Amino acid sequence: MSERVYNFGAGPCTLPLQVLEEAQKEFVDFQNAGMSLLEMSHRGREYDAVHHEAMALALEVFQAPKDFSVLFIQGGATLQFAMVPMNLLDSGQKGAYTLTGHWAKGAYTDAQTAGEAYCAWDGADCSYTRMPADNEISLESGTRYVHITSNETIGGIRWKQWPDCSAPLVADMSSDFMSRPVQWEKFDIVYGGTQKNLGPAGMAVVFLRTSILEKTNRHIPRYLRFDLHQAKDSMFNTPPVFSVYMLGKVLKWMKAEGGLQAMQERAAQKSQLVYDTIDSSAGFYRSPVDPDSRSQMNIVFRLPSEALEARFLQEATQKGLMQLKGHRSVGGCRASLYNAMPLAGVQALCAFMQNFQKQHAL
Amino acid sequence: MSERVYNFGAGPCTLPLQVLEEAQKEFVDFQNAGMSLLEMSHRGREYDAVHHEAMALALEVFQAPKDFSVLFIQGGATLQFAMVPMNLLDSGQKGAYTLTGHWAKGAYTDAQTAGEAYCAWDGADCSYTRMPADNEISLESGTRYVHITSNETIGGIRWKQWPDCSAPLVADMSSDFMSRPVQWEKFDIVYGGTQKNLGPAGMAVVFLRTSILEKTNRHIPRYLRFDLHQAKDSMFNTPPVFSVYMLGKVLKWMKAEGGLQAMQERAAQKSQLVYDTIDSSAGFYRSPVDPDSRSQMNIVFRLPSEALEARFLQEATQKGLMQLKGHRSVGGCRASLYNAMPLAGVQALCAFMQNFQKQHAL
Repeated sequence: MSERVYNFGAGPCTLPLQVLEEAQKEFVDFQNAGMSLLEMSHRGREYDAVHHEAMALALEVFQAPKDFSVLFIQGGATLQFAMVPMNLLDSGQKGAYTLTGHWAKGAYTDAQTAGEAYCAWDGADCSYTRMPADNEISLESGTRYVHITSNETIGGIRWKQWPDCSAPLVADMSSDFMSRPVQWEKFDIVYGGTQKNLGPAGMAVVFLRTSILEKTNRHIPRYLRFDLHQAKDSMFNTPPVFSVYMLGKVLKWMKAEGGLQAMQERAAQKSQLVYDTIDSSAGFYRSPVDPDSRSQMNIVFRLPSEALEARFLQEATQKGLMQLKGHRSVGGCRASLYNAMPLAGVQALCAFMQNFQKQHAL
Repeated sequence: MSERVYNFGAGPCTLPLQVLEEAQKEFVDFQNAGMSLLEMSHRGREYDAVHHEAMALALEVFQAPKDFSVLFIQGGATLQFAMVPMNLLDSGQKGAYTLTGHWAKGAYTDAQTAGEAYCAWDGADCSYTRMPADNEISLESGTRYVHITSNETIGGIRWKQWPDCSAPLVADMSSDFMSRPVQWEKFDIVYGGTQKNLGPAGMAVVFLRTSILEKTNRHIPRYLRFDLHQAKDSMFNTPPVFSVYMLGKVLKWMKAEGGLQAMQERAAQKSQLVYDTIDSSAGFYRSPVDPDSRSQMNIVFRLPSEALEARFLQEATQKGLMQLKGHRSVGGCRASLYNAMPLAGVQALCAFMQNFQKQHAL
């Protein structure tokens, strides 16, 4: 057994150690049934309890109101890029997309093949270093929803406030899922992949306003229909048993740790430590994004040269500070501080950054 | 730790104990990296090796020819019900569906919303108790493919021989995946969910003739495009890491046990034991399906009364012979004998059946 490292990867990413250890313990023999949970029927008593507990916890921990449903659907956020317009856009209706970075553009690309979609704001002019103000978002008539990406994992920016728009919001929250409260009254759908704050890769969690199902499209293949997943409690077909089970465990951990409020406070505290380290480095470390749009989950930063960045990453790895490399499309460094990253890990990172600067500043 | 039971469930279902124990051992700390595989980047060295090994093993163990590719896609066989027609059917082309039971009808339902599909044979007249002969399958002009369900999990029938048709075959092999050889020259696509012979629920494995990608549809959302998954080695988006990892372990186990040939021999041997028990019971146990279409994976059988069936299931459970209940839509009993079911489990079942008959025969 190796010593546990601090894993700053952007996803898949660090999970609560307690969750991993619990899952390991019951992996081969679940609740003394003489078999693994992975081998049990998804229609059986044991899995049914696991499944419905995860559903209830998801709604509770995220403080979703009673008129919202939660769905578990395979295919990650990427399949939701397709399902949202396929289900929501009736003929004559349009989806408005705010292009705030890599992931928002992906959602827009898919929406264009699945319905009528248009760009309501494009951050290309500022190289996607900030989110728009409300009055920069231009909506056309016939807009069914406004799609936002709450946090851009690669660009390292987030919507600090949820925008006020004249149409309901649909949000991809993959990379800051359940790290802060949602103003539910503004949203019809909130979705995201599980593989950052909620567990291993292999599933999306979709929160949707139940009443919208009255009008969603039924003339599409069944796996792509929100109404069917909802009507069958996400057991329309065999659910991804292990993903749901791990989600339930992560949610239980979040609840025991103080829930959404605690996750929000920790995210603010942890990210502030890193941004303070950057801001007090006299330019040695540099954040390329607008201060008002800084992400609390994915902190991107640059060093004075690519050579120093390579050295930084190498020395960090030697000290057990792992996966700090920026996305291959943008380079530089990135520290992802998801819910399961302990404060001690962030403190170790900041101490390392200060020390590295001392050794390498001109 | 409870004593391990024999699990005859139809899926999710029994997995090789050795695979479960290995996965448990390395669950929290993978290859002494100080983190779980679940926490590692899907772009990193460790996962990349796991992923590509699983791809190579899938092609090798299933004896797929060089002009086939293998894809890992979330959503199970059910999402493939949609993706097959969405990708394959050009305007003017049709999918022919052989309706052989519950799962074939599901594939047909979805195809009708995604393209032009028609019924080429319907087993309704025989209550889906047999597969059609070649000359019963009626193809229309413009047929792009003929869809078959190699084994009906609920009905308990299988295609003993692959049919000869004038169009390429597309097969859902979910419930007898990698339990027998495929005549690859007849097929364009072979797909199935993993949660029977290949691992836990949460993924489909799709084998396709690579050359068909030249003509598949690009005007659909990206997650639904075969060509993109193939071009990116199924890492177009974050793959279901745990599912791929477990698939690799199951395939390694299959290879070590003698590969496809051994799985085929065992399936024949194990199913013969149960059918012999049924056939020699003087009508106490009764198989409702045509002898020539009998499944080697899912053996459905009835007892003289529903009261006796209930008692049979209750006593079997007490003896550690689990999940023998038939699908809720058809009732009765069903013994699923997937690759990972040991011969000893089948012998125990047959002994129990004979004993139960002695005690309860009139």
